[in-house]
Amino acid sequence: MIKIAIDAMGGDYAPKEQVEGAILAIKQIPDIECTLYGDEKEIKKYLTSDKRITIVQSDGVIDMGEKDPIRAIRSNRKSSMALALTSVRKGDNDGVVSSGATQALIAGAHILIGRMKTMRRTAIAPLIPTVDGRNIILIDSGANIEIKAEYMVQQAHYAHIYAKEILGIDHPKVGLINIGTEEGKGRELDQEVYTLLSQNTHLEFVGNVEPKQVLNPPCDILLSDGFTANIVMKTIEGTAKGMGKMLKQELKKGILGKLGLLFSMSNLKRFKKRMAADEIGGAMIYGLRGVVVKAQGASKKNGFYNAIRQTASIIRQEVPSKVEAVLEGEKND
Amino acid sequence: MIKIAIDAMGGDYAPKEQVEGAILAIKQIPDIECTLYGDEKEIKKYLTSDKRITIVQSDGVIDMGEKDPIRAIRSNRKSSMALALTSVRKGDNDGVVSSGATQALIAGAHILIGRMKTMRRTAIAPLIPTVDGRNIILIDSGANIEIKAEYMVQQAHYAHIYAKEILGIDHPKVGLINIGTEEGKGRELDQEVYTLLSQNTHLEFVGNVEPKQVLNPPCDILLSDGFTANIVMKTIEGTAKGMGKMLKQELKKGILGKLGLLFSMSNLKRFKKRMAADEIGGAMIYGLRGVVVKAQGASKKNGFYNAIRQTASIIRQEVPSKVEAVLEGEKND
Repeated sequence: MIKIAIDAMGGDYAPKEQVEGAILAIKQIPDIECTLYGDEKEIKKYLTSDKRITIVQSDGVIDMGEKDPIRAIRSNRKSSMALALTSVRKGDNDGVVSSGATQALIAGAHILIGRMKTMRRTAIAPLIPTVDGRNIILIDSGANIEIKAEYMVQQAHYAHIYAKEILGIDHPKVGLINIGTEEGKGRELDQEVYTLLSQNTHLEFVGNVEPKQVLNPPCDILLSDGFTANIVMKTIEGTAKGMGKMLKQELKKGILGKLGLLFSMSNLKRFKKRMAADEIGGAMIYGLRGVVVKAQGASKKNGFYNAIRQTASIIRQEVPSKVEAVLEGEKND
Repeated sequence: MIKIAIDAMGGDYAPKEQVEGAILAIKQIPDIECTLYGDEKEIKKYLTSDKRITIVQSDGVIDMGEKDPIRAIRSNRKSSMALALTSVRKGDNDGVVSSGATQALIAGAHILIGRMKTMRRTAIAPLIPTVDGRNIILIDSGANIEIKAEYMVQQAHYAHIYAKEILGIDHPKVGLINIGTEEGKGRELDQEVYTLLSQNTHLEFVGNVEPKQVLNPPCDILLSDGFTANIVMKTIEGTAKGMGKMLKQELKKGILGKLGLLFSMSNLKRFKKRMAADEIGGAMIYGLRGVVVKAQGASKKNGFYNAIRQTASIIRQEVPSKVEAVLEGEKND
């Protein structure tokens, strides 16, 4: 049995959507067990079955709007997020799913689970939908603001194995996010990473990729530092939201327009769904001694279920120990 | 008379769209004269009038796909772009409009026109359309990859005056692009800029702005270094293009959908137009001893005309000397 710890109290719609997502996961995925960390009384309002589901009472929650989320997770070891993370370190569970505050989850995972020996920096890796229906990995979307080139290459190795094992891509390609496609473009850091990736024999490197191609890139993994990739992720989100609003404003105009909008409604809904990150699942935190997946803060039942399913696959495929083996091999090269 | 140098050979559709754009500008703007730098024979194919328009023969063009655009502009001083820039240094013209390669234009402007004494780094400043129909300034979109905090503040001053004089905003607000809204977020550079802007008494600083709000920001100026703002600009472009394709894919589905699409066609066209940067005009290069505006490489007649109109306004409002005065004042504070 794969054992998954659920932070039932983190997220905009917790614990309702988290509990319902877990029930759905139990129904759909036969080899998992879930432990829900949270307020037992609140959880029980939504819990319709206790088959392969256990509740562990927590004390407090790391608030989504927390001003200092890292301090919050440090000072509240009984919170649902802290208890869920600690359960993995203790060996009670194999992985954690949380919709709680990202920075608290990254910091908490560092403190309470710890980093893999071979990987020097963690990374957070959401999936981005592309025009041709693939999902690409965007790392590091915010774990390390300033980082060395060689640590970014380790993160690329992690993503490479993730892409193979979880996304089912036989020969994953890595692209470096940059302001131009030519070699020598970008900051010193980008030039160093470019050189290291070009020399690496395990990774297939396609070179620099400009974010003009962000929804249609010639690769499966888009790599940058935690500041830049976070800016890319948030710009995609902002542009998608802004364009959606502008589209709505324009489509409503005129009588013909209103009629057109009516006929197009179900297509537009499918378009909106396609853009919703919720449908894809969560963002994995790479480089830990356990599996930690961050589901969107605004996750509803299905989004949270997808994140649980993803977590179960990562554990089933033993992604972290495969990464450990590859990074050990690279060290000895 | 305001005298404008036109690089007639730079751009994807040169010289046709450049020449037609100039003719339109002469018709619409009574106080300008244009000098077209380029291949006289080619230009004459499209030139229907010589009223307030002169041609100066050039030799060669800085190609859009140039692998080393900076070298190209250095080594070809007779190219249309180089001649147009040089004419401003000589005092023959007050400003330049070019759709040529951005990096060549920035480098060429440095070499052939020169930097303002008071401003230590140039910046390139495109305008971005917002959800509520404003245009905001995104600086520095690619002139300086690595830069000091105090030079970024100088660029903010330039944008502040531009926003007042050209965009007609009485009290322009400055936001710092960052990965979180709280003070203390981001890299060391971002934290330094935050402190300097907070202490500045001339600029209205709204704090950090996440690119989640990039098409609807709580400010008129979005500030970052030349690497980050370039990444933001290209991510907006990539997301808009990608979403447009996905929207098209989805809207075509089903019979009702096809009917809806038909009725919505004119609204969709207006939406597309609204997203086209071409309609807004060009990106000004801040910090030079003259006015240089980069029109989109893919500019058609109207886009190029808009860039000429913008250039004329900048010259008419004497933006560079107003900036010079403010920066002198700041120095003495």
